[in-house]
Amino acid sequence: MLVLGIGGSALGAKMVRDCFSADLTKNLIILDNVDPDTIHEVAKKINPQNTVINVISKSGSTVEPISQFKFFYNLFELELGKEEALKRIVITTDIAKGNLRKLADQLGLLSLEVPENVGGRFSVLTPVGIFPLEYCGIDTKKLLEGALKQKQEGKGLAVTGAVLDYLFYNKGKNIKVLFIYSDRLFRFGEWYLQLFAESLGKRFDKNGKEVNVGATGVLAKGVTDQHSQVQLYREGPDDKFYAFFKVNKKTDVLIPESFGEFEGFSYLNGKRFSQLMDAECEGTMQALENAGRPVVLYEIDKIDLEAMGELIYLFELQTAVCGYLYNINPFDQPGVEEGKIIAKKLLGYY
Amino acid sequence: MLVLGIGGSALGAKMVRDCFSADLTKNLIILDNVDPDTIHEVAKKINPQNTVINVISKSGSTVEPISQFKFFYNLFELELGKEEALKRIVITTDIAKGNLRKLADQLGLLSLEVPENVGGRFSVLTPVGIFPLEYCGIDTKKLLEGALKQKQEGKGLAVTGAVLDYLFYNKGKNIKVLFIYSDRLFRFGEWYLQLFAESLGKRFDKNGKEVNVGATGVLAKGVTDQHSQVQLYREGPDDKFYAFFKVNKKTDVLIPESFGEFEGFSYLNGKRFSQLMDAECEGTMQALENAGRPVVLYEIDKIDLEAMGELIYLFELQTAVCGYLYNINPFDQPGVEEGKIIAKKLLGYY
Repeated sequence: MLVLGIGGSALGAKMVRDCFSADLTKNLIILDNVDPDTIHEVAKKINPQNTVINVISKSGSTVEPISQFKFFYNLFELELGKEEALKRIVITTDIAKGNLRKLADQLGLLSLEVPENVGGRFSVLTPVGIFPLEYCGIDTKKLLEGALKQKQEGKGLAVTGAVLDYLFYNKGKNIKVLFIYSDRLFRFGEWYLQLFAESLGKRFDKNGKEVNVGATGVLAKGVTDQHSQVQLYREGPDDKFYAFFKVNKKTDVLIPESFGEFEGFSYLNGKRFSQLMDAECEGTMQALENAGRPVVLYEIDKIDLEAMGELIYLFELQTAVCGYLYNINPFDQPGVEEGKIIAKKLLGYY
Repeated sequence: MLVLGIGGSALGAKMVRDCFSADLTKNLIILDNVDPDTIHEVAKKINPQNTVINVISKSGSTVEPISQFKFFYNLFELELGKEEALKRIVITTDIAKGNLRKLADQLGLLSLEVPENVGGRFSVLTPVGIFPLEYCGIDTKKLLEGALKQKQEGKGLAVTGAVLDYLFYNKGKNIKVLFIYSDRLFRFGEWYLQLFAESLGKRFDKNGKEVNVGATGVLAKGVTDQHSQVQLYREGPDDKFYAFFKVNKKTDVLIPESFGEFEGFSYLNGKRFSQLMDAECEGTMQALENAGRPVVLYEIDKIDLEAMGELIYLFELQTAVCGYLYNINPFDQPGVEEGKIIAKKLLGYY
């Protein structure tokens, strides 16, 4: 399946997909940019004979999925003919409004609905995220069960997290670092970065007062970024707060005894890569704490669909609560329109 | 070739590799983490029969490449036998010191040298970056020529950039956003983020005074992150300065006329994806400027080895000059040691 979208609609599905081994999800391609280099690479890789296109745009007029759609539909039509090509399209958009809805209705295309009151960055648990994942054989029921569990049991954690976000920001820490000690969980960070930025970065509060609030999220990968960012984190200005993410049960891979007789090699004999990661995570947290930097640790038992559902719900709720504390609306994004309008002008839309 | 390293040594080669189509460089695997999930995936993918291992660690004792090396050597030995497996290793390390140098000398392994006065984040134009790239058929002479050209002609630009970095930081903008409008150039951003953070994030100045300086770099991808970060960039606090990177000559891909008779589709007929990207870049820059946010634009004619060499030299020099303005040493990294020591203690090294 080829998913055409941008922003939250693409990031949500990417986040869940990447929790799995690449083997299991290699048929789910999510294209969320319009760089011609990448369009070209994707076009070489897909085979219209066995691919379905899912076009996602809530408004039905987002320029990136529309232009991607024109391009890939054209490829499909050339290879399969119009009738067959049209059968391979599934549109995900507003139930009644917008250009994509009109097109789907007029051409009789398969379509799914984005709930009216759910923005892109909050949409992974709607048909936006669920359909491509389910199509690829991912049992999204478990994802939803995890979210439900978190809804029932996890409100305290979300509120605590929101209060910390709010307090650290008000104490002058305008940067929130997510330090994620898991390659498979890394895209959760990308998804969260959007949720955090677009929900809480606001010019006006609910009373119309100009406030210009919002911390900036930064993503770091454990252990890799210990070797690139920790120098700044420990010694630079005290303008950050840190959320570490650690996965307790990891794939079990032994470090073998090779070269074990050499200095600097022997102490690793019989250790596991999971131990190494955990020790480095612990070492980095302690080093930051010793430098007086504020650190929060999230321990995730293991990465599975239920855990992902819990994480999604937890941070969606936390972000909404934090918006309440800032007294801003976490569900709008008035600041992204102007750039779009200028771009459309330059393209001759008006 | 399988490159085992972490930090600057890995990021430099990744940056250059990713300028090319994935087809051309699919045989260059760079492993820069110790996550067992990823180790496992790489182990499935490589074939010892036609793979060379390049282990990179300047000090010769970095725990990540050492543990990766133990793991992959063991695989190679099981498949090829000791004699053949040892022939497939190339060590890149200090000329005289360290555990890897001792091992290479004692076992008679092929080895390359990291110049003594060059740190990992500045090492891409040394054997650290040059060897894996050259081995994969990349003509690194052009890369070095680009760097040389920049050295001869580009000092003014580096100094201007350093002064801007310094002034914006001192005006309270503690976040530098790189907004990169090119998928292939994106890893340049990752490389630069380390260069910037580790060189300029320092506790003490050259007189031993505690200063805790250093802006935090943030990476955004155009056009994708317009839909995730621009809300914050336009409406959030005025705590950022922006460097946009735009590539003038891009792959030429037409947006075809499919669905051109529908509203919201027709204005894209006959446009090119490169035009779309450029219009969005321009729209986003203007929208930020209209909100009073400081924007700098770097225009790159096209992505090739010479341009990459120029970029590498430009930003290495700019970073060094900025260190001079901060009155700190941009070439050390005293803040990364403590976490490493704690981790090694937890692993029973001491």
